[in-house]
Amino acid sequence: MTSSKPVLYSYFRSSCSWRVRIVLAHKGIEYDYKPIHLLKQEQISDEYKVLNPMGQVPALIINGNTLTQSISIMEYLEECFPEKPILPKDPLQRAKVREVCEVIASGIQPIQNLSVLQKVGDEKKMEWGNFWIEKGFVALEQLLSKCAGKFCVGDDISMADCCLVPQVFNANRFKVDMSAFPIITRVHEALTLVDACKAAHPSNQPDCPEDAK
Amino acid sequence: MTSSKPVLYSYFRSSCSWRVRIVLAHKGIEYDYKPIHLLKQEQISDEYKVLNPMGQVPALIINGNTLTQSISIMEYLEECFPEKPILPKDPLQRAKVREVCEVIASGIQPIQNLSVLQKVGDEKKMEWGNFWIEKGFVALEQLLSKCAGKFCVGDDISMADCCLVPQVFNANRFKVDMSAFPIITRVHEALTLVDACKAAHPSNQPDCPEDAK
Repeated sequence: MTSSKPVLYSYFRSSCSWRVRIVLAHKGIEYDYKPIHLLKQEQISDEYKVLNPMGQVPALIINGNTLTQSISIMEYLEECFPEKPILPKDPLQRAKVREVCEVIASGIQPIQNLSVLQKVGDEKKMEWGNFWIEKGFVALEQLLSKCAGKFCVGDDISMADCCLVPQVFNANRFKVDMSAFPIITRVHEALTLVDACKAAHPSNQPDCPEDAK
Repeated sequence: MTSSKPVLYSYFRSSCSWRVRIVLAHKGIEYDYKPIHLLKQEQISDEYKVLNPMGQVPALIINGNTLTQSISIMEYLEECFPEKPILPKDPLQRAKVREVCEVIASGIQPIQNLSVLQKVGDEKKMEWGNFWIEKGFVALEQLLSKCAGKFCVGDDISMADCCLVPQVFNANRFKVDMSAFPIITRVHEALTLVDACKAAHPSNQPDCPEDAK
């Protein structure tokens, strides 16, 4: 069955799933969508944890193999589907792309993800999420001041942009004042016009409830 | 001055610096060591934040360029110094290495790093660190059951091992019961015998105080 379409286990609003959806859309890779409802705790069911022991989305089944962790999946897709690249050719520029990815994917998102917020508690979670995203965006804005063009690193879409889009969505959820981040705002606006970003948006996913569109 | 040695801004006990130190030692890349004392807040000085706006170590100056974020730096070193590789050749195996890296570098370490612990507060920080490392190690042990050989992925040292070593050190600091994790323990023991891991250990860094050796 290695010739069947890849299967993406995703949740419409999960930022890590969203990153991978942008890459799949950008590269024109067709896939089947399997919703995992995070608020119904489907990600920690025994059945799903066989696919991803971390109990998180996304997971991608491709050529009979199960891949987890969004950055790892994006790097794999880049290596196996090199058309419409999401990494530049120059090693220094590649490092810049990965630096932006890591600031978001290690420095910001994990500290405000669902499981951490549940541990922090309902009362404090808005202040907590706002604090870490704003702190990270202060650094990110400075990094982008040196490497951004139309997008995060130069004028071509990259893995960094795939990480930025959902993080700005989260910043808005946590009421971060985006007026302090003009470069992030400008790049994000440019990305909203990109077809792959439109296709990957939560509101265009099959598991997005009507009242969240 | 592009021919001068790389400069690593590091703190002896920083896990992200430690990852990069293992790679530099493994590949035999000579470098100058600049200590940044995290407990004295040197990482958030104006002078240092020009190098790394995130206010974290490591930062690596190489060929006149400043790189930050440990995974990005490791990927860069692999691309520019391909001898003694830290990634396998096969894309699927590379994905497994990066998956293990990301489980640690995004899924565990950021939630128990210094700045988060400071926000959590002295009273709760031991329980907090223990909780997140143990939760991550449950998943990591399952992942390793499918891909570990002598080391995290097969029998060759990889980026995944560079992430594992400091994370096990942190697990011990946070009193995680390692008896539940026999594969992590076995791989870690094998790594302690590797010369590059010995060279990169906190106790062998110039800024390690005598009483921490």
